Amino acid sequence: MKRLRLLTPGPVNLHPAALAALAQPQLHHRSPEAGELVRDLRERIARLAAGTGGEAVLLGGSGTAAMEAAVRALFAPGARVWVPVAGKFSERWCEIARAAGLEPVCSAHDWGGAVPPEAVPAGPLDGVLLTHSETSTGVLQPLAELAARVRERHPEALVVADVVTSFALAPVRMDAWGLDAAVLGSQKGLMSPPGLAAVVLGARGLERLRPAGYYLDLVRELRAQRARQTAFTPPINLIEAAAAVMAALEAGGWEARFAWVREANERFYALGEAAGLAPVPASGAERSPATAAFYLPRGVPYPELSQAFAARGWRVAGGQGPLKGRILRVSAMGYFEPGELERAWRDFAEVTAGLR
Amino acid sequence: MKRLRLLTPGPVNLHPAALAALAQPQLHHRSPEAGELVRDLRERIARLAAGTGGEAVLLGGSGTAAMEAAVRALFAPGARVWVPVAGKFSERWCEIARAAGLEPVCSAHDWGGAVPPEAVPAGPLDGVLLTHSETSTGVLQPLAELAARVRERHPEALVVADVVTSFALAPVRMDAWGLDAAVLGSQKGLMSPPGLAAVVLGARGLERLRPAGYYLDLVRELRAQRARQTAFTPPINLIEAAAAVMAALEAGGWEARFAWVREANERFYALGEAAGLAPVPASGAERSPATAAFYLPRGVPYPELSQAFAARGWRVAGGQGPLKGRILRVSAMGYFEPGELERAWRDFAEVTAGLR
Repeated sequence: MKRLRLLTPGPVNLHPAALAALAQPQLHHRSPEAGELVRDLRERIARLAAGTGGEAVLLGGSGTAAMEAAVRALFAPGARVWVPVAGKFSERWCEIARAAGLEPVCSAHDWGGAVPPEAVPAGPLDGVLLTHSETSTGVLQPLAELAARVRERHPEALVVADVVTSFALAPVRMDAWGLDAAVLGSQKGLMSPPGLAAVVLGARGLERLRPAGYYLDLVRELRAQRARQTAFTPPINLIEAAAAVMAALEAGGWEARFAWVREANERFYALGEAAGLAPVPASGAERSPATAAFYLPRGVPYPELSQAFAARGWRVAGGQGPLKGRILRVSAMGYFEPGELERAWRDFAEVTAGLR
Repeated sequence: MKRLRLLTPGPVNLHPAALAALAQPQLHHRSPEAGELVRDLRERIARLAAGTGGEAVLLGGSGTAAMEAAVRALFAPGARVWVPVAGKFSERWCEIARAAGLEPVCSAHDWGGAVPPEAVPAGPLDGVLLTHSETSTGVLQPLAELAARVRERHPEALVVADVVTSFALAPVRMDAWGLDAAVLGSQKGLMSPPGLAAVVLGARGLERLRPAGYYLDLVRELRAQRARQTAFTPPINLIEAAAAVMAALEAGGWEARFAWVREANERFYALGEAAGLAPVPASGAERSPATAAFYLPRGVPYPELSQAFAARGWRVAGGQGPLKGRILRVSAMGYFEPGELERAWRDFAEVTAGLR
């Protein structure tokens, strides 16, 4: 059976450089070549996320593993952290903070809206857990503004951000924005298979790191990775894939890549709006380049819509949590063969044209 | 630069079925095909490790991630567990138990020796953490006998085993031996890339499961995986690779595979002993089929020996912990092209012939 091509906001169609890396004979993770790949990918990730001021720690696992590792490494049980919840992934921060024994203050915001910087609470705060691109709603949260307000009101609080679907897709400026840690995964902007994640630490994040747990212990991993090793057997094939993709994207220039993804995504919005579909991101909210999200017209069942795309060879995504069955999401953040994205736009326009 | 072929006890040369799976377009982990792969691999792993009585939980991470997940899910902080330490991997059980807040009783045994069943301590015990194939020394520990003695003396204690380098390489009979949980990884007998692990649970293991942590929480994962889902984005490409390799190996028959690996490994022992090298496993200890380990003759530096193999296109392994610089390890558990293993044996004989 032919496999559907992915218009989903992660995982995405693999970059040819990732596929080429995966076709290589198995590398031993204790070889000099593997050490060089670990160094190379750590540097590329840190440079893109934090300029010259950060350091990346690679982890074998999903983005969620990196979220948990960051929370446990940066906050002691009982720590008071603010989590503005405006979608499934900010909700996850809240769940992880609770599971790690922190005392999160989780404020509820509209799914589809931007979290206003005024929402930053008063009172003592050890940190905040923010979501940059909220993939479940398609909103790019005002991370710079939120971080600035936190720094102003709570100078000692650590600012931790999920940049899973903004890293390598939109600017992430840890240094300029005052982020102390950011987490990401391999299966989004890096166009590689899932299974590799990273925590990027700024200067304050590095200073405040504490040992926590075993497999996800960032102190142990950082020590090993500074010596071009890893504490445990890493997903070295995925490290090689992600490093190869980053090298290829860097050669084209990040600003060009960001503009391309944003425009490709905006094209989906233009086509959807032309078909009468309402975007999920509220009018005051910035749209994430990682996904275009639309409310379904009343009476249109998502499974049928999904089937209509599948019949044309595409896999699309629906809603999560309270948006399940109520929205449609597509994404241009993966790799497209020449002409393939144009075909996706055309099919998208044709399928959605019949909806109302 | 041509990549060295691996004679290392993990990772290993990839099976062609794994490479073919990795060359496929990216599958979405929420697709029906992915759900089917999750079900298929869970069933294959459980059937091989536990007959009809077990259930497997897949995890994105290394074997160490599965070790930690099992410890946290099966024992509460303060639990008293016995860990017989006779190599680097049994030592790791001890470290994980401490990191998880248990009270491990870690008894020291000779590296290279078998742990005698008489060593099972008296006194109250909530569980034991055992290592089947101790990859750092080449010893296959008497898991059945150790488990039987634990069951006899401590009927309520849970028996947890690391079968990372025995699974799919030698018989593992959780039901017959009375194991409650076993952990494994993708990069050994499954001849796939590293980054996927599993915990197989027997009936008592399933009964006693408790929620612990977030990303490595077996309760959460088991619930999701029983519905052919995963709690978080799984390394679905590695799941597809491992399932394809297991299907290929099953077609050839597991007993034939076990015999082949054992004989291939014994051939290394025969060649090494003919060259005057002393095996690391003591005479009373059973040899693991996963690796042949030899003491280096006095005055032979490991780096030079490793270089001699590299000059012939092979990567071999040295010692870990107290055996670092003192031993040589080779392994036949990976995939070999026709004629390749014969070449490995010949090169091994020629390189080691010159050592004393």
